[in-house]
Amino acid sequence: MPHIIIEYSANLRDALDPASLVEATHRAAAQTGAFQPDAIRTRAVQRDVYRVADGKPNRAFVHVVLRMRPGREPEMKQAIGQAVFEALCTELAPAFDAYRLGLTFELQEIDTRFRFMKDTPTARQIGAVSAGKQEGKEGKS
Amino acid sequence: MPHIIIEYSANLRDALDPASLVEATHRAAAQTGAFQPDAIRTRAVQRDVYRVADGKPNRAFVHVVLRMRPGREPEMKQAIGQAVFEALCTELAPAFDAYRLGLTFELQEIDTRFRFMKDTPTARQIGAVSAGKQEGKEGKS
Amino acid sequence: MPHIIIEYSANLRDALDPASLVEATHRAAAQTGAFQPDAIRTRAVQRDVYRVADGKPNRAFVHVVLRMRPGREPEMKQAIGQAVFEALCTELAPAFDAYRLGLTFELQEIDTRFRFMKDTPTARQIGAVSAGKQEGKEGKS
Repeated sequence: MPHIIIEYSANLRDALDPASLVEATHRAAAQTGAFQPDAIRTRAVQRDVYRVADGKPNRAFVHVVLRMRPGREPEMKQAIGQAVFEALCTELAPAFDAYRLGLTFELQEIDTRFRFMKDTPTARQIGAVSAGKQEGKEGKS
Repeated sequence: MPHIIIEYSANLRDALDPASLVEATHRAAAQTGAFQPDAIRTRAVQRDVYRVADGKPNRAFVHVVLRMRPGREPEMKQAIGQAVFEALCTELAPAFDAYRLGLTFELQEIDTRFRFMKDTPTARQIGAVSAGKQEGKEGKS
Repeated sequence: MPHIIIEYSANLRDALDPASLVEATHRAAAQTGAFQPDAIRTRAVQRDVYRVADGKPNRAFVHVVLRMRPGREPEMKQAIGQAVFEALCTELAPAFDAYRLGLTFELQEIDTRFRFMKDTPTARQIGAVSAGKQEGKEGKS
């Protein structure tokens, strides 16, 4: 259940489209093949009150966190990170040109021992339930 | 000083009341008995720009993080998590029905070696100060 | 690339100025000398839907997280934390008086093995590039 959270300083609003940024980042994560595409949840949030470095108006930031289950090899994590980072750089090219933009991107791992999940059952799962075959999806995983 | 942070995708707005969700989650955490009730701080934030899975309009997410001091036994952490998770599932039942909703909930531990806290002193504490008995509440804990 | 994220409950809005709080916190972090001043990114976000303790209207919270690279000595981390915490306490003095305010502040470390960064090149760097001397700034660091 990877989560991607994008924060951006409000001055970037004229140099980026938040929905496009979300879509490009989301798609890049999906295209790594490392995740169940169904599981990715990406969002962007604008920061209206902020200060970057010396506070000059052309200073801007984008900060992105990707949280995912632990256990992947470092090489795989690097590959995931690099792919998503390149998509961010491409999407943010106009913002890098128009502002003194600092982009940071972190991969973080979730402690799945203490993580709980539930999804709306799909039609297929509901069918299986009717047939008495579904295993519980609710609970820790 | 447990913190509970709830994020939800904006399309859920017609299927949940954020204030009720905050209250139910907060109460469930308090009722575990694991925390000083006075110490719990819960908030909800709507994500207006997001993408879940294939981006279809009925795709929705709720993501909840509970941060607490370290040192509890795994069994206690499971019990806390399960109790709060069940409250979330109950409160979100209409949203699970109306949307393809994915709920995720993480317990995280705070590194209290590098945590600082200060509270407004209570009347009782102010009285104790007047009597010269209070120990400093400010600083790391 | 330290990041400072400030959350505050909406009822504090008449007892604090978010921009001043951001500036004071940012400046305190810069004045520790522990960071490249150019690298600090600070933002504040108001939480409109929240519950603190028993939910009474005078209950308020401020929660601050400072994320920085790992590897500093515990004494340095304590000194950084204490300096920023004192600035927060000073800036929030009116809010501590007007509300039952709980302030919490956490230092967290970034796993820089899986962190990616890119900055808009400065004029100096662009000059160096023209002269064929710049090392790549893009990528993991």
